[in-house]
Amino acid sequence: MTTTRVVAFGGGHGLSASLRALRRCAPELDLDITAVVTVGDDGGSSGRLRAERGGLPPGDLRQALVALAGDHPATRRSAGLFQHRFAESPPHRGPARRDAADRDTAGPGGARDTTAGPGPDVDRPDARGDGLAGHAVGNLVLCGLMELLGDPVAALEHAGAMLGAVGRVLPMSCQPVGIEARVRGADPDRPDEVRTVSGQHQVAVTTGRVESLRLTPDAPEACPEAVAAIGAADWLIFGPGSWYTSVLPHLLVPQLADAIVSSPARRLVTLNLAAEKETLGLSVSDHLDALRWYLPELKVDHVLADAKAVGDPEPVGRAAESLGARLVLAPVAVSDGTPRHDPAALGAALVPVLGADR
Amino acid sequence: MTTTRVVAFGGGHGLSASLRALRRCAPELDLDITAVVTVGDDGGSSGRLRAERGGLPPGDLRQALVALAGDHPATRRSAGLFQHRFAESPPHRGPARRDAADRDTAGPGGARDTTAGPGPDVDRPDARGDGLAGHAVGNLVLCGLMELLGDPVAALEHAGAMLGAVGRVLPMSCQPVGIEARVRGADPDRPDEVRTVSGQHQVAVTTGRVESLRLTPDAPEACPEAVAAIGAADWLIFGPGSWYTSVLPHLLVPQLADAIVSSPARRLVTLNLAAEKETLGLSVSDHLDALRWYLPELKVDHVLADAKAVGDPEPVGRAAESLGARLVLAPVAVSDGTPRHDPAALGAALVPVLGADR
Repeated sequence: MTTTRVVAFGGGHGLSASLRALRRCAPELDLDITAVVTVGDDGGSSGRLRAERGGLPPGDLRQALVALAGDHPATRRSAGLFQHRFAESPPHRGPARRDAADRDTAGPGGARDTTAGPGPDVDRPDARGDGLAGHAVGNLVLCGLMELLGDPVAALEHAGAMLGAVGRVLPMSCQPVGIEARVRGADPDRPDEVRTVSGQHQVAVTTGRVESLRLTPDAPEACPEAVAAIGAADWLIFGPGSWYTSVLPHLLVPQLADAIVSSPARRLVTLNLAAEKETLGLSVSDHLDALRWYLPELKVDHVLADAKAVGDPEPVGRAAESLGARLVLAPVAVSDGTPRHDPAALGAALVPVLGADR
Repeated sequence: MTTTRVVAFGGGHGLSASLRALRRCAPELDLDITAVVTVGDDGGSSGRLRAERGGLPPGDLRQALVALAGDHPATRRSAGLFQHRFAESPPHRGPARRDAADRDTAGPGGARDTTAGPGPDVDRPDARGDGLAGHAVGNLVLCGLMELLGDPVAALEHAGAMLGAVGRVLPMSCQPVGIEARVRGADPDRPDEVRTVSGQHQVAVTTGRVESLRLTPDAPEACPEAVAAIGAADWLIFGPGSWYTSVLPHLLVPQLADAIVSSPARRLVTLNLAAEKETLGLSVSDHLDALRWYLPELKVDHVLADAKAVGDPEPVGRAAESLGARLVLAPVAVSDGTPRHDPAALGAALVPVLGADR
């Protein structure tokens, strides 16, 4: 059996869902999985670490590593340790409040596309306590490894080994980036005003309509290992995830965009199950149009969507066609009605697509 | 070949030297190594974590784990990560000062019995920075594991697995303890005054003469797994290490003292190479007398000392005899003249003792 090399792009819960699905297909399809992760987070534990210690915000990288963690009980436990957040009140002084930690990705409370993560997070950027409160242990481990080794790729390789990861996690850039959006109606009292919203966290939680997106610096250098992985890939997978803050940023890194366009790999887009705050008012086909807007040369082979979430497949099918893609409908949501991908269902939907003409 | 079960008591650099020596003999003698570690530290990173988050001070436990870390490159690197201290100034804002971290054990600058540790440490209890500065990553990992699992023994077992440890690390008690000493001449201007000095760190750095030592609470409950290990041991090894703050505290835990006295194991005391601040004015034989003072029923089989450090062997031999022990002299110091045990030399000296009548 030939190995199929898959590169999955994203950040946060959406990428985590994609990776959990891929690892379920990995044995059957002999997948070699690489995650390429956004490095724009400036909220929560990651934002504090980035602001206070420099280096890459670790939260999205940690989520991807944990999604790929090995099944051995010891590596499962290490993954649990990576996800554990230091309680806000020291346990001996008051009840531990493990649910009151801050977040790394996307907006608080809004509809999320997630299958992972330690339950609902609440953003409490001011919950500092002794300096550890709210930090995920894995964020501190990654921060320490990056400081110790001076190289995020080596740090992620070692963290992957600690977790027995069935795949590799790379940052999209070895330098953190900023995310800025021009947003119409960010202030509900001035629905027609367009203003600049700065920072991944602020963009993720804006209720206005994002009209344009850019990174700062506007042409960050891509991680060379990510460029190489894209060039060697058989499949490139975009989404699910926060469209503006986790999926599109990769297309704004010039070397990644070039590598994506020129890669011989086939391309799959997995659509979200529900709009998030940042994409309120955006239809499912608008999501596909946004990909083409930011990378006009992008050709896509398959668009995978949940039939129930799509509703009328006609406009989505047309939007897929305009990217050169075939729309694949499959039930990929969890059964409780929340807009989260079920890793098993998503994996089952991926098998015939990725395994089609091997 | 029968397995020889060894329990080594101590804390900090001295225990680390003992464990590094033991692991060198481990293949030849088929040793099963258990470290039983003091939990009285209240200085540096450990002291901050203990004060702010409760739970056991992790530094001495971390040192013991790292001393037992496996030889595989990945576990060596994880051990390096455990020892890495977050820089005081974030690297992007100023030069990293990895040497300016605080300490977990013993006094700053004084003669140390060490073969381990990341170079000379300087105590900077006020160097807080963003809350991470000065913390060893391993201290945060242990703190997170204890918070997550709620059981220090399970936390140490998992941390040992993360490091591929060739042995087991246990706390002497699952509750942190305080150390208090009555000290004569703690104030150099009042050489005859006896005052109470509180806290392991203060006792370790006192330049007065320690006249008596006690724990708070005065009869802490022993870690049950430590009691069981002592009962099942073939050898119990005391020292080297800070005598009052790392070696003697075990004898002040009633259940450990009982287990030590009633264990069928043979007993070895490894003496220090030089006096530390807390033991200035204490002769080598005074160290042995102190063991008997705090645990009069203690019988010892062998006392291992460095011939050069001992000088005239006559009084030390007599002190050893009063414990029922034979004095074994061997060159166990590093060759550069500093008062540190060389793990290879100490291991070579331990082989004939531990392997005598197997």
